[in-house]
Amino acid sequence: VRTQTQVAVSPDGTAWVLLNASPDLRQQLLQHPEFAPSDGSRSTPVSAIILTSADVDCVMGLLHLREFQPLRIYATSSVLRVLTEENTLFRTLDRSMPRAQWDVLPLDKEVGVFEQAVSGETVKLQCRAVSLGGEFPDYASAHLRSGLPKEEAVIGLELVQGQQRLFFAPSVPGDAATWKCRTAESQAALLDGTFWTDNELIDFRGNGKTAREIGHLPLAGANGLLEQLRHESSRVRRLLIHINNTNPILDEESPASCAVRQAGWEVTYDGMEFEL
Amino acid sequence: VRTQTQVAVSPDGTAWVLLNASPDLRQQLLQHPEFAPSDGSRSTPVSAIILTSADVDCVMGLLHLREFQPLRIYATSSVLRVLTEENTLFRTLDRSMPRAQWDVLPLDKEVGVFEQAVSGETVKLQCRAVSLGGEFPDYASAHLRSGLPKEEAVIGLELVQGQQRLFFAPSVPGDAATWKCRTAESQAALLDGTFWTDNELIDFRGNGKTAREIGHLPLAGANGLLEQLRHESSRVRRLLIHINNTNPILDEESPASCAVRQAGWEVTYDGMEFEL
Repeated sequence: VRTQTQVAVSPDGTAWVLLNASPDLRQQLLQHPEFAPSDGSRSTPVSAIILTSADVDCVMGLLHLREFQPLRIYATSSVLRVLTEENTLFRTLDRSMPRAQWDVLPLDKEVGVFEQAVSGETVKLQCRAVSLGGEFPDYASAHLRSGLPKEEAVIGLELVQGQQRLFFAPSVPGDAATWKCRTAESQAALLDGTFWTDNELIDFRGNGKTAREIGHLPLAGANGLLEQLRHESSRVRRLLIHINNTNPILDEESPASCAVRQAGWEVTYDGMEFEL
Repeated sequence: VRTQTQVAVSPDGTAWVLLNASPDLRQQLLQHPEFAPSDGSRSTPVSAIILTSADVDCVMGLLHLREFQPLRIYATSSVLRVLTEENTLFRTLDRSMPRAQWDVLPLDKEVGVFEQAVSGETVKLQCRAVSLGGEFPDYASAHLRSGLPKEEAVIGLELVQGQQRLFFAPSVPGDAATWKCRTAESQAALLDGTFWTDNELIDFRGNGKTAREIGHLPLAGANGLLEQLRHESSRVRRLLIHINNTNPILDEESPASCAVRQAGWEVTYDGMEFEL
């Protein structure tokens, strides 16, 4: 059984920046000793968390971190409002000393999310939020949603460290035209592999919504993710994340898995590690 | 590493009633095949969840269940208000078909939480909420908290099936005088084993609050749980749950562990099962 999607990047090999906070985060941190508190205290090498949306799958793990410190959380202004204005549960994060810091991630602007002197050199990690369109989760009140700019609902993250770039977009709600150039400029792109076909959930359950209706561009089919990114540079390492358990690419013997790999994509797995 | 406290009871050997919903619930359900969906769908043998407080450790796991169905959630009226009036995240539970049902558990009254015909006989599980005193969690707004009756903040559960009784109280905020008779009437009592001493967290971290200040009667010391329940019937199986990682009883070689066992208590562990 796979755990839910969680990605962590380390700019210096010691500190970690989490990309989203999955519902399984506690288990995932415990399974990897590099995240253990260094000195028996509650301080962990997790220095920041960057959220790409307010979806439960992206934010629920924050509640696992309520006894970690110090905690710095980045998200768009709108996502921060959905979390903190309508969900008192997150106030448990403000109880630690020092208290968690909630920071606005503006769109289309590089922001420093990590800076540390390592053997005389300054290691910096910058992050740029790229709007991917999409909707705010429907748990947020209609009143609040109606006042929020949709561009801030779902973002991709361009992480920049020196010459290295990583693009992270676990949910791709629609057309890739506006942001696919970002993947071409990166060494690696971690992209939405939730569904193979648009009708996948309907075929599986007998009813429900299409992949596109719930904010995920399917991989296959006309105007699917594979087709939309076909002409991007093949020197980019392209990795599929956030793979739903209905997606046939999880079966290595499937034609879907074969098609994905022939198109030059990789299917990620629990515990996968790589260096840029 | 232990997972966080989670107890499930099965009145008929097939369906399960969860007592609270721990942050680790998804992992815990996946580790035990008896909770697997029966027919490839999302319906699981979990028929109800009963909450003893609005603490994050008791309620966070509800968010793991948002794709399970049908879901029936019992808690005091005040706990339901803390969850649903100030936390839109829980609306994700109302999205399933049929949607989750939130039911009020009144104090001091037996309520049916499960009823099923099993080979010609009706199997019923009743639950009585017993006030344990205590406070609402401080993540809830001061405004809301000021209007809620404190008796509904933290409860114990007396589960009754025919002649069998189980008492469940993972958080015991204070004096046991008013409810300890309940443990004497039960076959088994699962009780708050969070801390050994009142100063345990302060001794460990160098600062902080006492066990009593954060809603847990310590096991040892004057007027501790062991002393308060010393005169209760020894034919009751007494099990300690919700044990913090600072509690010396986790070390079987410790004098604390020895004292607990000599007093006739059991220390629970991950995956422990027993029958009444």
